[in-house]
Order: sequence, then C-alpha cells, then structure tokens
Amino acid sequence: MNDALNELRKALPPEAVDLTDDGRFRASLDNLRYSRLPQAVIRPVDEEMVSTVLILANRHRVPVVARGAGSATTGAATPAKDGWVIDLSGWKNLHIDADSMIAYAQPGVTVEELDRAARAHGLFYPPDPGSKKHATLGGTLSCNAGGLRGAKYGVTRDYVLSLEGCLPTGEFVRWAAPLRKFVAGYNLRDLWIGAEGTLGIITGAAVRLLPAPAEQATALLAFASGTAALEGVRRILRTRRIPSILEFLDRPSVRGTVAFWKKTAPAKLEALPLYIRENSPPLLLVECDGAEGRARADLDILIEAVSGLAEDITVSATPDEAENLWAVRRGCSQAMFELGDTKLNEDVVVPLDIQEPLLNFVRQTEREIALPMPVFGHAADGNFHVHILYTAADADAAKRAADGIRRLMEFVVENGGAISGEHGIGLAKTPFLPLQLGEAEIGAMRRIKDALDPNNILNPGKLWEPFEVWNHARTPVRLPWDH
Amino acid sequence: MNDALNELRKALPPEAVDLTDDGRFRASLDNLRYSRLPQAVIRPVDEEMVSTVLILANRHRVPVVARGAGSATTGAATPAKDGWVIDLSGWKNLHIDADSMIAYAQPGVTVEELDRAARAHGLFYPPDPGSKKHATLGGTLSCNAGGLRGAKYGVTRDYVLSLEGCLPTGEFVRWAAPLRKFVAGYNLRDLWIGAEGTLGIITGAAVRLLPAPAEQATALLAFASGTAALEGVRRILRTRRIPSILEFLDRPSVRGTVAFWKKTAPAKLEALPLYIRENSPPLLLVECDGAEGRARADLDILIEAVSGLAEDITVSATPDEAENLWAVRRGCSQAMFELGDTKLNEDVVVPLDIQEPLLNFVRQTEREIALPMPVFGHAADGNFHVHILYTAADADAAKRAADGIRRLMEFVVENGGAISGEHGIGLAKTPFLPLQLGEAEIGAMRRIKDALDPNNILNPGKLWEPFEVWNHARTPVRLPWDH
Repeated sequence: MNDALNELRKALPPEAVDLTDDGRFRASLDNLRYSRLPQAVIRPVDEEMVSTVLILANRHRVPVVARGAGSATTGAATPAKDGWVIDLSGWKNLHIDADSMIAYAQPGVTVEELDRAARAHGLFYPPDPGSKKHATLGGTLSCNAGGLRGAKYGVTRDYVLSLEGCLPTGEFVRWAAPLRKFVAGYNLRDLWIGAEGTLGIITGAAVRLLPAPAEQATALLAFASGTAALEGVRRILRTRRIPSILEFLDRPSVRGTVAFWKKTAPAKLEALPLYIRENSPPLLLVECDGAEGRARADLDILIEAVSGLAEDITVSATPDEAENLWAVRRGCSQAMFELGDTKLNEDVVVPLDIQEPLLNFVRQTEREIALPMPVFGHAADGNFHVHILYTAADADAAKRAADGIRRLMEFVVENGGAISGEHGIGLAKTPFLPLQLGEAEIGAMRRIKDALDPNNILNPGKLWEPFEVWNHARTPVRLPWDH
Repeated sequence: MNDALNELRKALPPEAVDLTDDGRFRASLDNLRYSRLPQAVIRPVDEEMVSTVLILANRHRVPVVARGAGSATTGAATPAKDGWVIDLSGWKNLHIDADSMIAYAQPGVTVEELDRAARAHGLFYPPDPGSKKHATLGGTLSCNAGGLRGAKYGVTRDYVLSLEGCLPTGEFVRWAAPLRKFVAGYNLRDLWIGAEGTLGIITGAAVRLLPAPAEQATALLAFASGTAALEGVRRILRTRRIPSILEFLDRPSVRGTVAFWKKTAPAKLEALPLYIRENSPPLLLVECDGAEGRARADLDILIEAVSGLAEDITVSATPDEAENLWAVRRGCSQAMFELGDTKLNEDVVVPLDIQEPLLNFVRQTEREIALPMPVFGHAADGNFHVHILYTAADADAAKRAADGIRRLMEFVVENGGAISGEHGIGLAKTPFLPLQLGEAEIGAMRRIKDALDPNNILNPGKLWEPFEVWNHARTPVRLPWDH
C-alpha cells in the first residue's frame, strides 16, 4: 500500500492529499460512529483528479470511499477496509435554471443549500431528510434519502434528471440528461442512486425543482393510544387529500422529548400545548401545503376525518406556532439518548395494514427484551424509525438489543415490508439484507458489481458482507449535528 | 434450432406453443411494421413456464422476445433474430388496493384497463401514452412510456413500486416491494424499466396510483407562427402553474389533420373552431386539472399569460367540447399518412431554450431534403414528435429521409437533447445511440447486459446493433389501432 501512496502523492498536488491524524480521523466515521482510519484523505479539485485516483486504486487494489458530510447513520461513509477516502464536501458549485426548474449541483452542496437556492427563485427541492442542514447531495443520492415529505413528494430518486461522475475504473460518464424525458440505453442513473458509492462516484447532478407551495397549514393531533393514532392515519389517507407531512410519534418518543426538554430547554416545552406536557400522548403531526387557500382547506378536511378519534387538536395559526409544534418532532432523535448511550436506529417500511401490527409487535418485543423501543416516523408511507436504546457497557443489553433488531427485521420482511426505506444498508444493516433479498436477486446485483468494479475497490465491505455493528465499539465524538 | 423446438414442445402443454403461420405472423412485428417470423409463439400460463422457456433458450442459444400488444413504434417487439416470442398479452390479472392507492397488475393489462380500474376507486394511473387503449403495462414498462401528461405527472417509471419476473437465466426475482420507500440493495427495478426486454421478462408489477383530479379545464390556443406558439409555451411555464397537458402542433400537422378530416370525417372538422378549419394555425392544446375550482382558475392564469400573443382562444365549457378540441391532436398521427406512405417518427427531447431552434432547424431541413416534416408533441417537457414522410418506392426520397433523420439526431444531441424521450431505441434508433452515449457509457451498459444475459438470448439485435430501418421493407398490414 505504500507504493500506492507514493504514486498517489506523485500524481496529485500536495494540498489534495491529507495524511494528518486529524484529517484522517474526521474521515474515518459517519454518524454510526464506527471509526476506521483511512490511509489518506483526498480532496480532488476536478473530475480528472477523481479519475486519476481511481486508476491508481485499481492498479494497487486500494479501497476507495467517497464522502460528503458523513451524516449517514449506517456506516455507508466509513472506510470499512481502510484505503483512501475521497472527500467531496468542498464541491459546492450550484446553479439554478429557474425557467427550466432545474438545479445543477456538485455533490458537496447540502440539501439545505440546494433548497434555499431554489426558494430564492420561488421553487423548492422536495426531498428533506432530517439531516438536511448537513447532508450533502452526493450522500443523499448515494443512499436515496427520503425525509418527512415523502408521502406527497417522494424521495431523492424522484427528482434526479441526470448524474455525472466516474465509473470504478475511472472512466468519466454521464447518465441521462437534464431533461424530463430520456430513454436511450440502460438506466444507470437509477442504478447509481442508492448504490451507496459502490458502483461509481457522483461528481455532479441535475435535479428537477417544483414551484414552492404558497402556503402550509400544520396541526398536532393527540390520541389516547398509538393504535388510535394509526387509525387516524388510515382515516386521513382515506380522504385522498395527501398531506405533505404526516408524522407519527408514539408515547415513549413524546415522553422522552418532554423529559429531555424539561432538563435542557424548558422554553421549548412551555411552547407546547398543555395536554402534551402533562400526558405525553401519541401524536400525529400533520402538514398540508398548496396554492393560496388550499392548504388550510385540505387540513380542515383531514381534521374532520379524525374528529371523535383525536383527543386534542392544535392548529397553528402562524409559521412561528407551527415551528413550536414541529419542535416536538425535531427533539425526538436527540431525546432518545436519555434512554441509553447507544441507539440502534432502524427505518423499516411496512404496508398500510401492517402499521398497527408493527406497533403491537414493537410493544411486545420491548417487554421481552426489556429495552426501550420508541417509534416515530413517516406514517403516510409506512416508514417508521424503530429504535432500541441500551448501554453499550452492558453486554447482556447489547445482546438483547441485537436480538430485538433481528426479530424486528424478520417481522417486517414476513409482512411484506422493507428493512430500510431511506437510510440504506451501509454496514449496519448488512446482516439483514439476505432476509430482504433472495439468492437470485443478490446474485444479479453482485454480477453487476463485478461487471462494473472488477477489483472491488469502491466502498468494499458495504451491503454484501455481514457486519454486526453491536459487536463493534462506537467512537465517542462530537459531530456537527449533535445538540 | 429443431432440437430446441422439440424440447420446448416436450416441456410445455401443446396449447402453449403456437406454430401456425398466422400466429407467428402476428407476433412477427410491431407498429414499426418490420416483420421477422419467429420459430414459435409461446403463451405461458405462469412464471414457471416463462422460466422453463428461458432455461431451454439458454441451453440452445435461442433468441427470446417478450411481447404485449406490439404497439411499440421502434421494432422493440420484433423478433429481429428470429427465435421464440413469449406473448404475455393474455396475462390480465389486475387488483386495486384502494386504501394503499396501489395497483397490482400482470403485464398484459392495457394502460387503459389499468386506468379505468383505478378510476372506479376515485384514483387514476397517470402515464397516458397515445396508444393506451392497446399498449400493455409490460410494454410500457419496457420502454418507459411517456404520454401527454408528462409535464405534470412524469412517465411510467415514476409510478412503479416493484416488479417481478425472470432474469435472462430463468431465475424468478422481485425488485423492491409494493411500498413507497425501499433502499435495500441495488435498484434493478429501474434498470429493467426502459431496458426494452433485454435484461429480464416482467411478469408482474405494483404501481402507485393518484387520487383522480376532480376537474379538468381545456383550451385551444392558436398562434400566428410556430415561433409564437413556442413563446407561448415559455410564458405559460413561467406562471409556474404546471398544466397537466401542453401540446404543441405546428402548421403542417394542423393542416394535415384538417385535410384528412375534410376527406374522411367532416363531422369532426365541423366541431372545430372556424379559425382552425380556415387557417390551420399552429396550436397549443392546454389542459389544467386539480381539485374543485382549481383547474379552471389555473387555466385562466395560463390564458392570461399568452394574452396579446395568442390570436384565438377557445375554452371548452364541457367535457364534450373538450373532446372536440382534443380530436385535432388525436387525428394527427393518422393524418400524417396523407403526406407519404412511410413515416419516420421520432420523439426527441430538447431543453426549453432549444425548442425554437429545433423548430427552425426542422423547417430548414424540410426545405433541404424536400420532404414534409410535421412536428407535434409535449411542449412542457420538450418532447417533440418530429416526422419525416416519404414514399417508400421512391429510393431517393428514402435516402433523403434517412439523411434528414440523422441531421435531426445530430442537432438534438449537439444541443443537449435526447434522441428518444418515450419510445426507446428498439431497432429504429440504433444508428443514433452512439451519438447519445459515449464509449464509457455504452461499455458499462454492455458489461451489465453480459453479466445478466451471458448468452445474449433476450431480445438480441436491439439497442446495440445498428439497424437501418429505411433500408428494410415495411410489411403492409392492418393493425388494431389503424383507423
């Protein structure tokens, strides 16, 4: 590997190759917090340099991982087999073609930067992962990130017109074009999206934008039980007014947030309705958007649909009030850590008629493994974040957590669901991929990987090799998105 | 090949193997009307039988083409290398899950049948190729068919949740799941869509449906010139009210339809506004849809945007009146044959700022090759049907037509466009694929083809081998969609 590094240093300008301990450490992990030090961190300035790195990597069989902000939760950005990390977080060029409603962006642009630029033209970029302030376009393309607005607006894939970048061999390619229709040859654009950086390195994208809705209307609905809240989901969907957001929070999630804020942010707690502060009920957070006058009219129809079922209803009259309601959902992720120092964070998807059975299954498993399993997530598309919290130092708890996750994944797959809806597989979900896919499916996928990356240099260790995250220590580190 | 046929007849029930001249002839062509007789037409009754056929085909290296209605315009369904045709047009199972807004359909269900079944539940299936009365879901998946509503609703790909079927090896696979989110392994679902039956045979699909809009509002706008009509497109799009349909028809298209109806359907002509009958002006056909009251309100905003530019505006007050306006667009395809017995029918896509240059280029080329080149199509996404009409018996005209098409394709690619937006490559566009894609792109695609179909049995001769359609005789035949 030293030969490889020498050649690399000869081929690139010195400022493009970072060999410092600090630089290598920062590139060694993502939000899974499992750290593996790469040999070098490379900050290429153009596509040709990316290509040069890949050619050298093939020659010397050096693993290469492309990286943005590292906000992935699965270890997808961790250099699991060491080697080199290509850091594209500095690739920030961004251009909005407002007439065509298309954005041209480099992979280091964050989702928030992209959306903000679009909004300056009266447009918006709909995919909105919770990490959007940090998550880069390149990373969200690589895991096909979802977000809260999926029910109405779909996921990252639904907005991508064309991609460019390098094949594992270093060849520069363009998939499709910045056009709304394109059928010429095989669709490798969508093969790259969600491939977690194992089939190519994305260096640019054209994504379509939508006209920004003129208004939003938000309501917080409280229910007597999780079951009642999920019945509320079904009633809301039956109205056929598709809300832009329909978030479910179970009682443990709400209770956790309330307790967390009592300690850390009393002002946020004060802004919540009294019935939430006192009872921590299961909630639905509903947002409608649309042209002038439509959002509130649609929201009223949804509220009418749950009348008699919801125990309390708070409708926000202003964007500030809406933000107060939103805070309860935004607080969830961090509040989880009140329940344990380690979180297994899943993002399973189930069909509509399995939402209630899933919740019942979680409550039962929670009792059996004696660990808290809060559930919240995107109810309109059945994409639920099921967590297990435990203390890493407690070996038995770690074992019970692993057992709980396996049971969850089996339940989900047996009931027609998906083991991941928006995070992807990375390292963390590799043990469960063979539950989801059969031998024929995995065989075809691996033949494609072999065909495009014969030396297996791009992000090796992900997807296909089982990795048991609960048997590996997490590195304590403060990441930019930690509160 | 006789050994293969004998084995096939032993392996399948006799009624599944059609060796008649008539059956083979009907499976020998699609709407390109280039006929190649297959050795046998197979009508399997289940997936296992499809798998058996593919295993035998691999053993004996027999080409296999899957087929629906044969309404493809590119030769995609023609058995270009003879062999066997698998006819799936009888696979008609269809189930609507109205609560989840998902349709489960076999590949022989037509797009119209699917849409009609959805509408019975207050839902609809947005992709609407002009051939939807005949086109099967399997065929439209295989070419990623578009249609008139693409500007607002996208194309076939945008509605597919999951696919099942057989790999070229005969292995049965499922890609993704009937869920709105799924990221587990590589996305072969979208690799199959648009692969024109070269990477697998689709035996089932789950597609998402949308709530049917409560109302439509339609207007026909006439302009002094094609250039003015395309300026109208830009003004309409700048309003950010995305119409569900925005069709452009140039003067030769309108004139052709008017002349055709004068001869064949005077009643249809009578129903058109006088200014169209008399002047055959370039037209925009605009439709808005939406919730109660929105469609007409949006249409009014679009009409306002072209006030002072459009010469005449007819707004339909009723669905019947709208249908009268629609008729001028529906008549176009057939009317073309008034201008020649052979049609080269392209479906190029250009960026918004190239729409006018494209029209100018077509008018100039038309003069240079001395053949009529009517243009109509989906202006909101830049997807234009550019035709060249000629008489096949006139060898020089055929040569000029071929020359015109090549110049068109070069113009389109040089200006950032696509050689096909919704028809695909099939046989007819194979000579132009290397204009669109570079060696690196084609190399990666062919490595994938080799990896999944090592014996090249599935639909060989398509996409990758140049085939000059103008050098091959078309077979005179009356197809179900001929008027």
